[in-house]
Order: sequence, then C-alpha cells, then structure tokens
Amino acid sequence: MGYNLLKGKRGIIFGALDENSIAWKTAQTVHDEGGTFVLTNAPIAMRMGQIDELAKKTGSEIIPADATSVEDLDNLVAKAVEILGGKIDFVLHSIGMSVNVRKGRAYTDEKYDFTAKGWDVSALSFHKVLQSLYKADAMNEWGSVVALTYMAAQRTFPDYNDMADNKAYLESVARSFGYFFGKEKKVRINTISQSPTATTAGQGVKGFAGFISYAEKMSPLGNATAQDCADYTVTLFSDLTRKVTMQNLFHDGGFSNTGVSQEVIEKF
Amino acid sequence: MGYNLLKGKRGIIFGALDENSIAWKTAQTVHDEGGTFVLTNAPIAMRMGQIDELAKKTGSEIIPADATSVEDLDNLVAKAVEILGGKIDFVLHSIGMSVNVRKGRAYTDEKYDFTAKGWDVSALSFHKVLQSLYKADAMNEWGSVVALTYMAAQRTFPDYNDMADNKAYLESVARSFGYFFGKEKKVRINTISQSPTATTAGQGVKGFAGFISYAEKMSPLGNATAQDCADYTVTLFSDLTRKVTMQNLFHDGGFSNTGVSQEVIEKF
Amino acid sequence: MGYNLLKGKRGIIFGALDENSIAWKTAQTVHDEGGTFVLTNAPIAMRMGQIDELAKKTGSEIIPADATSVEDLDNLVAKAVEILGGKIDFVLHSIGMSVNVRKGRAYTDEKYDFTAKGWDVSALSFHKVLQSLYKADAMNEWGSVVALTYMAAQRTFPDYNDMADNKAYLESVARSFGYFFGKEKKVRINTISQSPTATTAGQGVKGFAGFISYAEKMSPLGNATAQDCADYTVTLFSDLTRKVTMQNLFHDGGFSNTGVSQEVIEKF
Amino acid sequence: MGYNLLKGKRGIIFGALDENSIAWKTAQTVHDEGGTFVLTNAPIAMRMGQIDELAKKTGSEIIPADATSVEDLDNLVAKAVEILGGKIDFVLHSIGMSVNVRKGRAYTDEKYDFTAKGWDVSALSFHKVLQSLYKADAMNEWGSVVALTYMAAQRTFPDYNDMADNKAYLESVARSFGYFFGKEKKVRINTISQSPTATTAGQGVKGFAGFISYAEKMSPLGNATAQDCADYTVTLFSDLTRKVTMQNLFHDGGFSNTGVSQEVIEKF
Repeated sequence: MGYNLLKGKRGIIFGALDENSIAWKTAQTVHDEGGTFVLTNAPIAMRMGQIDELAKKTGSEIIPADATSVEDLDNLVAKAVEILGGKIDFVLHSIGMSVNVRKGRAYTDEKYDFTAKGWDVSALSFHKVLQSLYKADAMNEWGSVVALTYMAAQRTFPDYNDMADNKAYLESVARSFGYFFGKEKKVRINTISQSPTATTAGQGVKGFAGFISYAEKMSPLGNATAQDCADYTVTLFSDLTRKVTMQNLFHDGGFSNTGVSQEVIEKF
Repeated sequence: MGYNLLKGKRGIIFGALDENSIAWKTAQTVHDEGGTFVLTNAPIAMRMGQIDELAKKTGSEIIPADATSVEDLDNLVAKAVEILGGKIDFVLHSIGMSVNVRKGRAYTDEKYDFTAKGWDVSALSFHKVLQSLYKADAMNEWGSVVALTYMAAQRTFPDYNDMADNKAYLESVARSFGYFFGKEKKVRINTISQSPTATTAGQGVKGFAGFISYAEKMSPLGNATAQDCADYTVTLFSDLTRKVTMQNLFHDGGFSNTGVSQEVIEKF
Repeated sequence: MGYNLLKGKRGIIFGALDENSIAWKTAQTVHDEGGTFVLTNAPIAMRMGQIDELAKKTGSEIIPADATSVEDLDNLVAKAVEILGGKIDFVLHSIGMSVNVRKGRAYTDEKYDFTAKGWDVSALSFHKVLQSLYKADAMNEWGSVVALTYMAAQRTFPDYNDMADNKAYLESVARSFGYFFGKEKKVRINTISQSPTATTAGQGVKGFAGFISYAEKMSPLGNATAQDCADYTVTLFSDLTRKVTMQNLFHDGGFSNTGVSQEVIEKF
Repeated sequence: MGYNLLKGKRGIIFGALDENSIAWKTAQTVHDEGGTFVLTNAPIAMRMGQIDELAKKTGSEIIPADATSVEDLDNLVAKAVEILGGKIDFVLHSIGMSVNVRKGRAYTDEKYDFTAKGWDVSALSFHKVLQSLYKADAMNEWGSVVALTYMAAQRTFPDYNDMADNKAYLESVARSFGYFFGKEKKVRINTISQSPTATTAGQGVKGFAGFISYAEKMSPLGNATAQDCADYTVTLFSDLTRKVTMQNLFHDGGFSNTGVSQEVIEKF
C-alpha cells in the first residue's frame, strides 16, 4: 500500500476534523506513503472531531493551535520540529470558515465583524502559518506547502458568499509568499482548487447538495473526492514536483475548463 | 472638449488627493464629458491634498468620508443622491494603503495589525461602498462602478508587499458583488488593472522609479498614464459598455501579456 | 445620434453579411460616430448578403476580398487607403467558419482538410490581415484593431467544435502581433469575447437556441447583443482606450466570471 | 530506483531525439517507475537522433510515425497495443517545429506555407494523435495524455514567433478533446507549460541562451530542467492525479506568476 513517495519526510497537517475531511484523508494517505507528521486543529474544532482516532491510526501527535494566533503557531512549529526530529518537508493548510455564512447573512448584507473574523481564519491564517515557518527557518529545502481553495476565487457562486473573497486572498498569499520562500529557502507553495466536496464543513453551505450534483454533471471526469485530493496532494509533497510553485492547481475533473456540458445544456 | 459621453450622469469619485492622482484626472475628464459628481476622501487625506481646488474647477461638492466606516459611507451615499438630484450612475474607487509598506515591514515580517488595517482600507472598503449603495438602492440601472487595482494581484512584485493580497481581495469583491448588483439592479462592476503610475501614493513604494522604467520597457505601448486611465474609465462609465461586468481589465500598454520585451532581454 | 467618438477616423470592416451581423451593426454605429470606412467580405458571402444596402446607408465602398488570400488583402489595404484618403485608424475582423461544423463532423471525428480550411479562414486570416497592414505601413499611430472571438477558446462548449481551437489561435495572434505592431507602430490589437449572438453565422451551430437561453440565464446582465458589441467596439476604436492592447476582453454580461447562477442551479 | 508509480502501465512516447530531449528523460524515468512503452518519432528526426540507444536501455520498441499522417498514427496505435499487450495508459506528445523560425522569417513576415506546416506538425498533430487513440478505443480508463507547451501561448516572447500561436492551439485541443475523452472514456488530457529548456530543439530559437538566463533569474526556484519535467510528467501519468484534466500546468519554478524578480529589477 503506497509507493513510499514521502519516506523520511516530516510535516504538519492542519484541519483534520473527522473522516470526511480532506485533511483526514490526506493524513492517512501521507502515512501510507511513509511520511510522518503532527496533526493540528483549533481547540474548539478538536472537541467536535475525532482527531484522536486519526492520531492513533497514524502514530501522530496532536498539537492544538488557533491558526489566527501567532503565538500558537510559533509554538506549533517549534514543537513539530522537536517531535518529528528535524525540519519540516510538507504542510497542508485546510482551514476555512465564514461567520457570515454561518449566521445566514447574505453577501450583500455582510456584518463586517463577521467578515473580518472569517478573513482572519480562512485567509490571513495562511500567511501566519507561512511566516511562523519562515521566521523559525523550520522548512527543509524543497519543502512543499499546499493550501486548499475553491474556484469561487475566480468565478462567482452565489452561495459561497465572502469565502470567495477569502479564497482569492489565500491564493494571493500563496503567490506572494511563494516568491520569497522560493527565492530564499527553495520552498514551494501552491493551492489546490478542489471540486465541491461533501465534507462536514462543505455541507454547511446552503444548497450544497444541488450544487454538488451540478458540479458532477459539469465535470467530464466527475467531481474529485476527498481521497482524490489526498492523492493529488501527496504528489505535490513528493520530490517529483519540485519546480511547481506559486500555482493554483484545479483538481476538479475538468469543471474549471468546461463552459457547459451536454448534460447541463440539455436542461435548457 | 469632450464627447458628452457622460451627459446627465451623476457619480461619486473617491480618492482624489492632488493633481497626480488618477482620481483627480478622472474627475476632470468626467467633468469634460458632461458628468456631475461629488468628491470624497478620508478627512486625513483631505488635509494633505488640494481637493478644494478640484471641487471648484469641476463645480463639485466635497463630502468627507472614511471609507472603512459604514456610517460615513451611508451618509455619503444619501448626501450624494440629494446633492446631485437623483440616483448615482458611476462610482470610482481609488483607495489603497498598506501600513506594512509605510512602516517598512517586509512581506515575510508582517505585523498583523498593520495587515488588517491595510486590508480594511484597501479591499474591504470596496465592499462597504458597494453595500451602502446597494442597501440604499442608490444606483440607477446600468450604472457603472470601477475600482483601480494592480497586476500584483496575479503575479508577485517583491516590493508590492501585502497590497498584492489586498488587490486580489478587491478584485474578488468586484466579481462577487458584480453578480448580485448585476442580477438585481443591472449595475456593472469592474476593476482596471493600471500600469504603475507616478501618483503621490505610488511613489511611496520602494524602488518605484526603477520599476516604472522597467514597466515602460516591457510594455509595447509604454505605460498608461493617469490621464490615459481617466479616459479609459470614462468609457466604462458610459452607455457604450453596458454589458461589461465582473471583469478585471488590464490597462497597461500590453505589459500583462508580454512575456519579455526585446529591450529587457537584451540586458541578459 | 452618436458622440463623434470616431470623427475623422478611417477604417476597414470585415464580415458584414446582413443586419444580424455584429459587423453590420458595428458599421452603422461607427458611421453614427463619424467614422468612414470600406466594407469587405468574401465574394461568396457577398452574394448571399445585403451588403450593398449597408454601403448605401453608410456612404461606404465595398472591396471584395478573400481573407485567406494575401493578394486580395494587399489589394484591399491599398485600395482602402486610396479611397479613404489616408492611413487606417481602425479595423474590425469578424470572420469565422468551420467546415467540420457545416458538414456535421464531430470534434472527435474531424476531417483534417476541413480543419485546415476552417483554421485558415477563421484564425490565420487575422494574421494575414495584420501582416498586410503592417507591411504596407497602412495604419496610423494609435490605430486600433479588434477581432471577435468566443469564450470556447478558454473553456469547452461541446458543440463549438474546432472553432474553439481556431479562436484560441486567433487570440494568440492578437497578442503576438500586438507586441510588434505596438512596439513599432503604436497600434493596439485586441479581441472581444462576445456572448453567443443570434447572427446568421451563430445560428448555424447545433443546439444554438438552447445555448443562448442558457447563457442568458448564466449572465447577471443577460447576453450582450450585436448592438451592444458594436457600441463596445466603438470605444476600443476611440482615442479613449489607447493603452489597451493584447487583451482578450469579455463582453458577455458577466458570464465568464459566473461559476453558476441562481437560476441555473435551481434546476439541480 | 523509482517508486513503482507506473507499474503495469503501457504508453507511447513521442519526440525523443537525443539525451537532451524532455521525451528522452521522460522515457528513462517512466522506465524507472515500472512503465513500458513504445517510442516513436518522425523518420527524419530518427535519422538524426540516437533513439536506438534509448530503446535498448529501456527495452522498448521503436515505431516510426509522421505525426501529421493519420495513416501513420493509426498504424502506430494499433502496433503499440499489440506490442505492449493491451490498451494504452499514458501518452507523451513532445513535438514542435516552426518552419518560419528555421528559415529566419520574422513573425511580421510569415510565409504562410511555412506557417501551415508548423501548425500541422506542432499543433494539429496533437489532435490527430488523440483522434487516432479515440477512434481505435485504444486508451484504458483513467489513462493520461500529456503534451508539452510553453508560456508563449499566454504572453508574447518576441523570438518565439508562430510557435506561440501553435502552442495556443495545442492547449485548446487539450481542453476540447479532454472534454470528450473524459466524458466518454475517462481519459484525462493536460499540457505542461515548461521552463525554457536547453534541448536540441530549444537551442534553435534565436537568443536562447540569454533567454534561459533571464528565465532563471525570474523564477524563484530557477528553471525546471528536462529531468524535472520528466518527474512531473510521471506524476501526471500515475493514478494519483486522476481528476486533473483539461489543465495547462505551469512547471517553471514560479516564472509564470512572478511579475518581476529582485535580480531583474535591479538592472533598471
């Protein structure tokens, strides 16, 4: 099982909540590929999830961290290096939350305290993670960082709300920080723009079932699943993709470059 | 002088500071094209600038507003409609400021209070402006909103710092809000991605002179000036571009689609 | 009627077939804006159309030219300069035809003679037009060339067949030639990526009615009409857009940046 | 050596000329990963190259084929299936040639016979390969096709000439055919947009050495080498990237999303 693609590599995985999470699947797949890692999530998310089970299965330690807290992140990075016995080779950022969405506020009726909180959690947290790693000089050369994003950063999906803008900011951070982290430490940073995925988080978005069915019909290969995403992420963590950086990579069965599919147009 | 392209149209122009400002040139050009408008800027920016002179020349009133304050914006919108005698046809958002840049913080050493302040001023302010207009139902059908942006939202320029991420957010707001404002009120929203321009604000960016010279050499038609941008903005405010919306429009003499120019490659 | 935006400007308009044509509407609108021009079309297309009527209305001469023939194009350019009394300021390329589509060949069953013919007519013809103008030094400084294209160049629409690939080539020619024509003669070249439009040519595409209805529902402002396109083209021919070049400009009521609309998702 | 990523997979590799070729490196790397394949190249290219040596090292057979000849391609596909003992899992298209470049014709002085020939070899050949595979139903489900391309398809590089337009067409074919091949046979099709690479073909482009040095300085991770490209291609052939399709994937050390680098701007 597995190809040993990540043998000897050490990492940090953010955002595993339960077995539907992309981060959960990624942790399992990374484990199958020979990588070791620490798991982290916000204290509040950890209480709701079953991350202990994942930690056991993969022989990992858990370090709680609020990804909006520089202090927590600095602590996480230091502990991870200590626990894993060396610098970090890979990082998965899979964090996102919109208070406006949760509270049912329309995009044209944002409450800006909510907007700021969602931006801090979903977008700025990625910069904070990178800056903590960078300042601590905690990444190995040719290390790889991946953050998950969604195509709403490029095109509007009415129910995606302010998460669209957060993802646009997140993708920009990948490019901006990718320049400096590449130039100075030979670390690559990319985002994966994933099909809508039936995670616990995804299901919180209004009209999600209809949307996932629409995306399935629009994508020539069908939607990419959480496991597909885990597989793809592993290739980006591996040594085989060392010169891919500052990219937003669509992983969506072809949705992004399909103007319309036969099945969709037949409804009109 | 002028073609009467904006005859009978009413608008709000944000961000005129002094005669180097794109917003200043736009105000003059809109005036030449027969449009009427109110001018607005942050109280602090107004003290430094010569906006009174512009108001006199164009017969405009000035309504100070902090573009991060919903209260100020709601007041601005209400007053503008009252002063101009009807709903709004065009809006220019030309606002941007990074505290990290001002304080000399590197992108890899952001102070996050600074980052949040810059994001609020440069990016979220655009959403706030749009939401104030939308909630007050203050835009006429086929009205047009333009915000100024820069290509750093797509590609990294090392000295542009966190303004890159702010501009990515701003461009996303144009798409996201453009969907709703288009669908429900037939209002279009676009961003112009302008050449580096020797405004007072632009000159604050480190290494700006070298950069402007580089951009000049990379652009087959040379850099677009502030006056060029004013001219282009007028076309987007006019009735001739009614179906252009949710777009980021490069206005840069061809820079964005030039991989390298002969003059640049000759240095290597 | 009109703003005199093109007063004193001379041009060549390709592709006016009948009053449904975008080129036809553009000719009328250019005329209203004070521009003068010659009309041209392939001899065979002219027999089917009513171009004489358009010529009368706009006081224009007609010069037949096969846009795949360098000889015809060289002749056209020379005659146009002579007739109009000076160098050219604007050119509209509105030419496209796929033999595979006409003959009902699927994209996965192309006949390559057909493909080559369609490519020559739809894509290479644009290079030939530009090269004729360039070699004859027939364009004025700050002249403007526009070619019409469709978003199938970026995303697949199953019935658009090999026209998608032809449009991708055409858009590339705009960038490539735009570099040289810009650098050396200060001429700008852009493509307009137009909504599906109920022209006589457009109607030849299989399932076109359903598609146009789909696009209407996906576009926050609705589809751009042929007249809308004519209006937009006029702005690109005017002196107000001098620094816009090498761009592909979506003119589609927001379709291109809408991931899905409420009306479309409700069917799922 | 290798991870067994392609164990049991069968393929066709186009374009291996000599040990500088990306296709050559890919063949070796695929072999290391457990894949089997046939090699193919144009008869004329084979006389110049050392493909026999590669065939020996990798235990492969060679089937000459002119990639512009449907007959040759049909024969190649049939023979490959026979020799390899089953349907095809992966295909590499690494073919490109501009007669205009070879003959020293400027982009503004194309000879159109040359243009047509270069388009047939460099761009249409990709459609022909795909159509032969499709009609023969010769690809396994979840098979993967990769074609090599260059960023000149998006942005102009003055010396790249008509190859820019050919690559734009090629990338469009990947999307268009990717839709049908995905929908009907679950086959994915992607292009890799590779750094300028010091292959024998690449070296034919004027000013190539200066250009490669410029790209090196612009790319935060430096240029991707031929071996890097082979590694990346292997991930796209593997089962770990099954939902990536119709994409153009930049593999360039970050060049594509770098507006300017510190080293480049310092020359201005």
